[in-house]
Amino acid sequence: MPRYALKIEYDGTPFSGWQRQADQPSAQGAVEAALARLEQGVPSISAAGRTDAGVHALAQVAHCDLEKHWDPFRLSEALNYHLKPAPVAVVACARVNEEFHARFSAHERRYLFRLVSRRAPVTHDRGRVWQVGHPLALAPMQEAARHLLGRHDFTTFRASICQAASPVKTLDALEIEELAYPGGAEFRFHVRARSFLHNQVRSFVGTLERVGAGAWAPEDVKTALAARNRAACGPVCPPQGLYLAGVGYDPDPFA
Amino acid sequence: MPRYALKIEYDGTPFSGWQRQADQPSAQGAVEAALARLEQGVPSISAAGRTDAGVHALAQVAHCDLEKHWDPFRLSEALNYHLKPAPVAVVACARVNEEFHARFSAHERRYLFRLVSRRAPVTHDRGRVWQVGHPLALAPMQEAARHLLGRHDFTTFRASICQAASPVKTLDALEIEELAYPGGAEFRFHVRARSFLHNQVRSFVGTLERVGAGAWAPEDVKTALAARNRAACGPVCPPQGLYLAGVGYDPDPFA
Repeated sequence: MPRYALKIEYDGTPFSGWQRQADQPSAQGAVEAALARLEQGVPSISAAGRTDAGVHALAQVAHCDLEKHWDPFRLSEALNYHLKPAPVAVVACARVNEEFHARFSAHERRYLFRLVSRRAPVTHDRGRVWQVGHPLALAPMQEAARHLLGRHDFTTFRASICQAASPVKTLDALEIEELAYPGGAEFRFHVRARSFLHNQVRSFVGTLERVGAGAWAPEDVKTALAARNRAACGPVCPPQGLYLAGVGYDPDPFA
Repeated sequence: MPRYALKIEYDGTPFSGWQRQADQPSAQGAVEAALARLEQGVPSISAAGRTDAGVHALAQVAHCDLEKHWDPFRLSEALNYHLKPAPVAVVACARVNEEFHARFSAHERRYLFRLVSRRAPVTHDRGRVWQVGHPLALAPMQEAARHLLGRHDFTTFRASICQAASPVKTLDALEIEELAYPGGAEFRFHVRARSFLHNQVRSFVGTLERVGAGAWAPEDVKTALAARNRAACGPVCPPQGLYLAGVGYDPDPFA
């Protein structure tokens, strides 16, 4: 059976997450339903990241095995036709060999988190950013983020329901930029690692927000990390500012 | 009665437009309902631009007359509290003197139009951009836009229901920039004039899109303008990519 890699964009708002669930809409369920309109008996698809409810994707990657040989462009067009009106779109499609696995071949996941600081409620970005009403200072957040870089036991920043075999991960990047936002400021967190623990990015951002607000000192994040204790984490921030921004493969099937 | 200027942001999706209507939700109606929660018998408010159904605002400006003296910051906070959950927010508020009129004191209106060119349906920007599935060329659109600059009889680009006294207007700017967009390209039209005819921006963009697609030559826009005939216009584009981006006053009440 020929295998295809799909680069998938979705608005997570209406979904219970990426993963298919019996009674609730999911992004995976939407893509599988569209595939079922093309061929009968398509096996369940695998994806690089299991995003939680309300989390978005700019470039989730999944693979599927089909009976027919499809031109990749025509396959993406057919899937997008059947995906309507769900806010899910196949933005790229490529034929891959059977050794490619969207989850196991991935050597890097990239996440974006959008945090807006302003008093007036956001309107255009509702459901797309996490908003706080107080000012945030960029430099202390950047200083605190540096303590998290590298290989660590991230138990502090791991959800209790996390099923990863080990809490030890290597954080390759956690960069924060400040952008102009009407009446306030936007902070974009760019986070990169081979893989992440459950809720790791939201635990990072929720904790760094406390630093930006002045409630925590940057060194408190170092102490929290060293505690290897979930209770030492700051508040986990809400999901709607989080985007799965990209997945790295070598070679890139979409190049 | 003290007068206040309000800078208002809204997502136009759920509204029949800015202007209050008897049976349909409107942005003006939402703001007036919030004002009515603060004081009884607040007069109807006036705004700089009457946006159509589905058109958004980054910075609409309106003024209102109140009985009480309000601290401008507290007034905006109270209005935002009562505006929830409507996607309307007061992003700035200022005390102004009674000569200030949001509509008649405005010497400039600025609009933004977002046009996305890509095959896969947009997800995050649904309802926020106009999407076409074919490529567009920037340079011919820019060349065509130059024919529209300056003082002209814009009958060609005016809705038949337009109530303006004269079709003669002066277009001060129509700049088009191309931005990266995942899997495609985004074109942002920045349009500026003292005032506009009804549907003028959407008539411009719909016509310029034809130039970008190669269906019209840039000089065809010059010919269409000279015809002073509505039938010479290209297709009027849909409203959801249009944003009232700003209103100019001298002095700026929010400075």
